[in-house]
Amino acid sequence: MTADGALFLRVDGVDFDPAGASVPAADRGFNYGDGVFRTVRLAAGHVPAWPRHARKLAADLARLGLGEPDLPAIERDLADLGARYPDCIARITVTAGLSARGYLRSRGTALTTMVRATALPGWPLDRETAGIALHLCKLRLAHQPALAGVKHLNRLEQVLARAEWAEEGDGGAAEGLTLDAAGHAICGTMSNLFIVEDGRLATPDLSGCGVEGVQRGRILDWAWANSLNATVEALPLARLHAADSLVVCNSVIGAWWVRRFCGRSHARPAWHAELVAALARDA
Amino acid sequence: MTADGALFLRVDGVDFDPAGASVPAADRGFNYGDGVFRTVRLAAGHVPAWPRHARKLAADLARLGLGEPDLPAIERDLADLGARYPDCIARITVTAGLSARGYLRSRGTALTTMVRATALPGWPLDRETAGIALHLCKLRLAHQPALAGVKHLNRLEQVLARAEWAEEGDGGAAEGLTLDAAGHAICGTMSNLFIVEDGRLATPDLSGCGVEGVQRGRILDWAWANSLNATVEALPLARLHAADSLVVCNSVIGAWWVRRFCGRSHARPAWHAELVAALARDA
Repeated sequence: MTADGALFLRVDGVDFDPAGASVPAADRGFNYGDGVFRTVRLAAGHVPAWPRHARKLAADLARLGLGEPDLPAIERDLADLGARYPDCIARITVTAGLSARGYLRSRGTALTTMVRATALPGWPLDRETAGIALHLCKLRLAHQPALAGVKHLNRLEQVLARAEWAEEGDGGAAEGLTLDAAGHAICGTMSNLFIVEDGRLATPDLSGCGVEGVQRGRILDWAWANSLNATVEALPLARLHAADSLVVCNSVIGAWWVRRFCGRSHARPAWHAELVAALARDA
Repeated sequence: MTADGALFLRVDGVDFDPAGASVPAADRGFNYGDGVFRTVRLAAGHVPAWPRHARKLAADLARLGLGEPDLPAIERDLADLGARYPDCIARITVTAGLSARGYLRSRGTALTTMVRATALPGWPLDRETAGIALHLCKLRLAHQPALAGVKHLNRLEQVLARAEWAEEGDGGAAEGLTLDAAGHAICGTMSNLFIVEDGRLATPDLSGCGVEGVQRGRILDWAWANSLNATVEALPLARLHAADSLVVCNSVIGAWWVRRFCGRSHARPAWHAELVAALARDA
């Protein structure tokens, strides 16, 4: 294992030392952030809801005008990874590949596909039950409909937002929420948001900015399947303050409920444990 | 020379095969676009206006909350490069370096510094005198004051804008202009813009989006030194249509005048040849 916890690294089917050089300097992912990624959690050698991740990877590449991902190759990489490290975090990165200098993509260039795995994070085990504190970020997300929803490699807004608060500690925030310029809640730095009002769920509209995560889609489907009303809409910050509960989710953390946000306390949703269990299942 | 014309590659003082792997998968430049760059033209082994580039590199890193660039090391790399390839294009990339997975930067991490050189572009030689056609891009730049002006590694907007028009050819556009959501002209995909109205110059305000290029600053200084009125202001598209002349500039191309934009013809500024000569000098 390397200093950053990397266990496994494969680029275009070739295994690399996770700590060594593996990306050519001409890769458009490095030069322009021209590519997309997925971060998934392997459990017992398997990625829950993999078909949804595969669809999202293909959809995000299409949004950027890039080609189709080599899903059979990625599935082989994940199977080999799961056989060696059944429980870990895998990041799948697909870039526009190599090109000559300049913003123009070369025609017919092959995409670069990287699967990299790291050890499970050392989070406090009680986060799921005890809830988390949520920081309100000062950085506002820019409206860019051409990129909204896509998990692309241009993540400086998230980096700057995450740099606003100190490392986690006792009482420290485990996640930060970002708003858009109009003051609507959009996303956590690494997660999607749900609010609960009188038993109804709502999650922010992401047509202007934010990432449409796979876990968000799973929670919407779970809510509908369980007769919980769930909507996608613009959510001004005041709605969050008044909400009974707030939940942040992604494919690594599952779903955390928010204990504390902007000096206010919120409740754990009655169905939270049930949701967590459902997300851990493969559906 | 590699397929993409790369001549020279040095990362943190170590020479690499320009076509081989040189970037670790954990580099934050690759994962999040967490870093900045400069593209400069070497002429007779020397970078014109290098002190301006050095200041811009340091200012851009500071805007991202990163440390100071190792300028003596970069100057050594450029001197070694210039001794081997006196006339070429060099890209200097400085990233936030390595970190554990996630948006949070690790404390005390060293920046990664890469100097990579490619051959001079094979542009038609008459562009400077004959002018260029300028494409109007459909993609609108997002307002993000936290990143505006900075030449950072999150360049998907430019990649998408550059993908809008075909490869250059006879009559093809050599550059594309991007507006913001309000319809104000901001930047070319790889250049800054000046317009000329009754002998006065104006260049777009970049406090909301766009890159504040070194060549733009040099042209502003040159204009003031030559008693040409030059202002920085919001420029609605209609001002461009009505302008006598349009000029796009960067440190590689120098300054090109625009012959054709949106079906309208514009004139070569009377002082254009003089400006080009001044930019080629080291000041």
